[in-house]
Amino acid sequence: MNSLPSLKALLFELQKLPGVGPRSAQRLAEYLMKTSKKDVSALSEALADLRDRVKKCARCFNFTEDREICSICDDTTRSSEILCVVEQPFDIFKVENCGAFKGYYHVLHGVISPLNNIHPEHLTLSELKTRVERNSVKELILAIDSDLDGDTTALYILKMMQSNPIQISRLAHGIPIGGNLEYINDKTLSQAIERRSYL
Amino acid sequence: MNSLPSLKALLFELQKLPGVGPRSAQRLAEYLMKTSKKDVSALSEALADLRDRVKKCARCFNFTEDREICSICDDTTRSSEILCVVEQPFDIFKVENCGAFKGYYHVLHGVISPLNNIHPEHLTLSELKTRVERNSVKELILAIDSDLDGDTTALYILKMMQSNPIQISRLAHGIPIGGNLEYINDKTLSQAIERRSYL
Repeated sequence: MNSLPSLKALLFELQKLPGVGPRSAQRLAEYLMKTSKKDVSALSEALADLRDRVKKCARCFNFTEDREICSICDDTTRSSEILCVVEQPFDIFKVENCGAFKGYYHVLHGVISPLNNIHPEHLTLSELKTRVERNSVKELILAIDSDLDGDTTALYILKMMQSNPIQISRLAHGIPIGGNLEYINDKTLSQAIERRSYL
Repeated sequence: MNSLPSLKALLFELQKLPGVGPRSAQRLAEYLMKTSKKDVSALSEALADLRDRVKKCARCFNFTEDREICSICDDTTRSSEILCVVEQPFDIFKVENCGAFKGYYHVLHGVISPLNNIHPEHLTLSELKTRVERNSVKELILAIDSDLDGDTTALYILKMMQSNPIQISRLAHGIPIGGNLEYINDKTLSQAIERRSYL
């Protein structure tokens, strides 16, 4: 392998990616040696472009390209009274696709996770507070996962906003549409029964 | 997403990689936006270098960098009477690491797999035949996986070499050292009993 410095360097860099170990790095390298040279160049260029062009929006911390403010914050037809708080920029695309939300967003870039050494100051929580106070926001929808870290973060936001007269909501829990009762966990099912909707 | 052409391009290129779907492409992009810019550049450069510098050895089809012949084929201290036939270049590193083989190699770059439309002419089989005939090779060790496609390829090589007076062997099957009997499949166990070694 020492006679192949370029291959060795690639394997080393690939193994830094999440979920890529020595074996999958080898499989990727095998694929990259087999596929068209054009595809490998395209991937290399896409990577080179990414960090030069894609930045965080100065207002909501969503991804934005070649501009200070993202296309959603730039859209003046939205309601500024309601903010949807998400963990990651890709969550925005998900919410946008469902079409049920027409306010602005705020990306935390993670959740509070003491075990992983992620504390409130590592997230965009103070920026959220400033935004809420300056822009007379009336409701925060927390579209945060409902696991231990997500719940901790939701509680933190609730306490942080205590002095502000705003509503804070979380996404409803229940059976996914098209979901099968058999595969639903007990906690979700008991919530779905508790919050049943009358016909 | 349309306002983020660079990110879109990267997701598109990432999804061409084996085992990378839309969700893992997003996870990789999230990681690449979070990690140091230096790491992303290093990965981009390693990819750009790969296909410019790493080629296939003209003799054994192993990977070689900036030279026609790989470092193993260039090593004149090895025995030219014995060839180890492997599927992929990375298999060579594996065999080299165990230290039990001191001949040369031949990389097939795959196995015969009619279901995947891989036929003998797609592999380096005719080059193997020429090599055996020109270099008075005395033994071929087939270090090929023992699945359906591997067995087909081994049989093909056996038939192809019928007119040549050489020995053809395959790697021994049996219990891996340190392996647990409980997890060994029946076929391996029956081979291990059949070919047991007397103490």
